[in-house]
Amino acid sequence: MATMLGFITTDAAVPAPLLQRALRDAVDVTFNAITIDGDTSTNDTVFLLAGGASGVEVTDAGYPGFVAALRTVCGALARAIVRGGEGVTKLVSITVTGAATAGDAARAAKTIANSLLVKTAIHGGDPNWGRLLAAAGRAGAAFDAEHASVRIGPVELFKDGVPFDNRAPEAAACLAGSDIEIAVDLGAGGAHSATVWTCDLSAEYVAINAEYRT
Amino acid sequence: MATMLGFITTDAAVPAPLLQRALRDAVDVTFNAITIDGDTSTNDTVFLLAGGASGVEVTDAGYPGFVAALRTVCGALARAIVRGGEGVTKLVSITVTGAATAGDAARAAKTIANSLLVKTAIHGGDPNWGRLLAAAGRAGAAFDAEHASVRIGPVELFKDGVPFDNRAPEAAACLAGSDIEIAVDLGAGGAHSATVWTCDLSAEYVAINAEYRT
Repeated sequence: MATMLGFITTDAAVPAPLLQRALRDAVDVTFNAITIDGDTSTNDTVFLLAGGASGVEVTDAGYPGFVAALRTVCGALARAIVRGGEGVTKLVSITVTGAATAGDAARAAKTIANSLLVKTAIHGGDPNWGRLLAAAGRAGAAFDAEHASVRIGPVELFKDGVPFDNRAPEAAACLAGSDIEIAVDLGAGGAHSATVWTCDLSAEYVAINAEYRT
Repeated sequence: MATMLGFITTDAAVPAPLLQRALRDAVDVTFNAITIDGDTSTNDTVFLLAGGASGVEVTDAGYPGFVAALRTVCGALARAIVRGGEGVTKLVSITVTGAATAGDAARAAKTIANSLLVKTAIHGGDPNWGRLLAAAGRAGAAFDAEHASVRIGPVELFKDGVPFDNRAPEAAACLAGSDIEIAVDLGAGGAHSATVWTCDLSAEYVAINAEYRT
């Protein structure tokens, strides 16, 4: 999360334990999968309130559909928080695959998403696969460069230890947009993955946060 | 470390195992206690070579003096790396005390030292004790705000849950310098401490790292 109070309401009728479980399931992969600068706030909170006015009951059978819809709402709100970050010009999704454990996938995705060298490279439009791999490599996750890969948008820049620098202009064109998808496979042979949404780091971020006074 | 190859030579005669131990002891609290932006390099290396030309032998008895001297050399070089960081205008030492474990102390010091909100506040000269405590609080270390304290230079800005905002101008004057000492006590009741050297984050950092092209 990133300094936010979230209030989500539904007119479905949902038993409290199911509602709590749905919120946790949705928040884990949305509000808890975003970062602006890695700092956190003491008042990050999400409330989910179900009034039941529609008379539609959500039971175990309807749970998958309900949580999918909730995830869509939470995801859209979470990404809007990132877009609204200080000095942000680009929304970036970082997807890590090929991780040995779920923890490894999350750690690597967060480390890449919070790397200042990655964020400034994206800001400058530089398809710097080396900074992406260096961040993945220092995340404390199992990582094998000989089997790793890096994609920016649809452009594969690195695979199995081999860079494809001739594709850099095509990848740079992807970075020129305001919605960027980056995928890093850790090459660790596992089937675990994680996605984190982050943003570029601009001089404007520094100006806003350096000028703000307590 | 921060993308560096370090070569240190001495004309003392030091047995290899003692030399290795001395280097590790010195590097832990110097080269491995600095950060520019939290990113690391794949070629960070320190070599220590002892030629023995002086004929002075370093034995177990002389070890404390030798390692203290080595620490002084490594500390000066390590701090010079931080001062030479991209866009750096201030060298900042972050000392964490009152930690329950050595790991907690190191984690809290590193988290504060790498917080973008802390680094931009320092750049802007803002004695923002809240950002310091927030970073300490999210470090994953035992922390008790009711017994925590924050000092910038000699100025105590927060103690045992109480801020002293009337001292902010005095603390801001400390931040105007180029050498800044910040001390945070975690209030966890332990006797463990750690010091990390870091720097402010400027718009110039972003410009340099966004303009650099692979």
